[in-house]
Amino acid sequence: MTILHGYFRSTASWRVRIALGLKHVEHQNAFHHLRKAEHRAPGYLVLNPQGLLPALELDDGCVLTQSLAICEYLDDLFPEPPLLPRGPYDRARVRALAQVIACDIHPVQNLKVLARLRENGLTEDAVRDWARVTIDEGLTAFAALLDRSPKGAFCFGDQPGLADLCLIPQLGNARRFGVELRWPRLQEIENACAALPAFQTARPDAQPDAD
Amino acid sequence: MTILHGYFRSTASWRVRIALGLKHVEHQNAFHHLRKAEHRAPGYLVLNPQGLLPALELDDGCVLTQSLAICEYLDDLFPEPPLLPRGPYDRARVRALAQVIACDIHPVQNLKVLARLRENGLTEDAVRDWARVTIDEGLTAFAALLDRSPKGAFCFGDQPGLADLCLIPQLGNARRFGVELRWPRLQEIENACAALPAFQTARPDAQPDAD
Repeated sequence: MTILHGYFRSTASWRVRIALGLKHVEHQNAFHHLRKAEHRAPGYLVLNPQGLLPALELDDGCVLTQSLAICEYLDDLFPEPPLLPRGPYDRARVRALAQVIACDIHPVQNLKVLARLRENGLTEDAVRDWARVTIDEGLTAFAALLDRSPKGAFCFGDQPGLADLCLIPQLGNARRFGVELRWPRLQEIENACAALPAFQTARPDAQPDAD
Repeated sequence: MTILHGYFRSTASWRVRIALGLKHVEHQNAFHHLRKAEHRAPGYLVLNPQGLLPALELDDGCVLTQSLAICEYLDDLFPEPPLLPRGPYDRARVRALAQVIACDIHPVQNLKVLARLRENGLTEDAVRDWARVTIDEGLTAFAALLDRSPKGAFCFGDQPGLADLCLIPQLGNARRFGVELRWPRLQEIENACAALPAFQTARPDAQPDAD
């Protein structure tokens, strides 16, 4: 049985939970508490030498890492419903939206980076500002790029996909940091996603390891 | 004619230069000097609201952003030589390697982040340490994940691909920050890439805007 190694609050794990739900992939969950540094435990480092969540452990014991790579793997293996549109140009637009979040927002304001900022003497206020500015700038760019997508209920037309499964966790994270959500289109998309079971069951507060 | 908007020293632009070279895609170059903030000029923000390099402007005026999305677009459009292996599992492994660099190393130590660290009072030594630690940890994880790939001259077998075109610029960047290159396999791959014209012509010092 496929095992998702994750943590309820990890936005990267959250992305993969949505993808597994959209694709109806049966799987088990293994939980690794980020604040207790369980993702740095030797047993987990054997699975993922990067010491990051999530990781997807396959039936044969092979392990995949990096949330976007895992989501595209699931899309390759279970094509319906698709996470990416068909045409090369459209695919690139959706991948770019996903990467705005997965490359330019999340890694710059994740727990690890914020901890390093504290170690470098930044005050708690300065650390929160760092996270807020990163999220605000990133989502503003995301919204501007989104204006070029076909209109629809989701980030690209009327089916949720790779961009949506990055956006929803990032919006959740934005709230945690007190970012003012000043992008009406993003909130419309969030509402559309909230109506879907795959997004509902992937929420952090719906996870067994939520504290 | 396709136009690559880039900067000689931007590692993300460098990735796309390699991809364009491997695929033999005829194109023009437009240069935007990062240290002169030309990527924040209004004219460029119309092309890429994120204000980041690179961007690929297509014949019809449409613009693609995010280096990995651009590289996969080129791979979709010009399948030979492939940047990704065929099987879903192998593709995911190569994408994950690329994302270790594109998500977890580069965005955490790019010019913008380092400038923000200075604004937050970090000394020049602390800023350089930040960059060095980020690169060192990231490349160590990259090398560990690479041990699971099929052996060959490149990151995945005997053809250069998406992981190599991320690795080579990141190694160049590591040198700039004085990171000790203590991963023999990565240097072997770098040597193999250095023999290929697509990698030679993509080097920063081979660009017309190099200063």
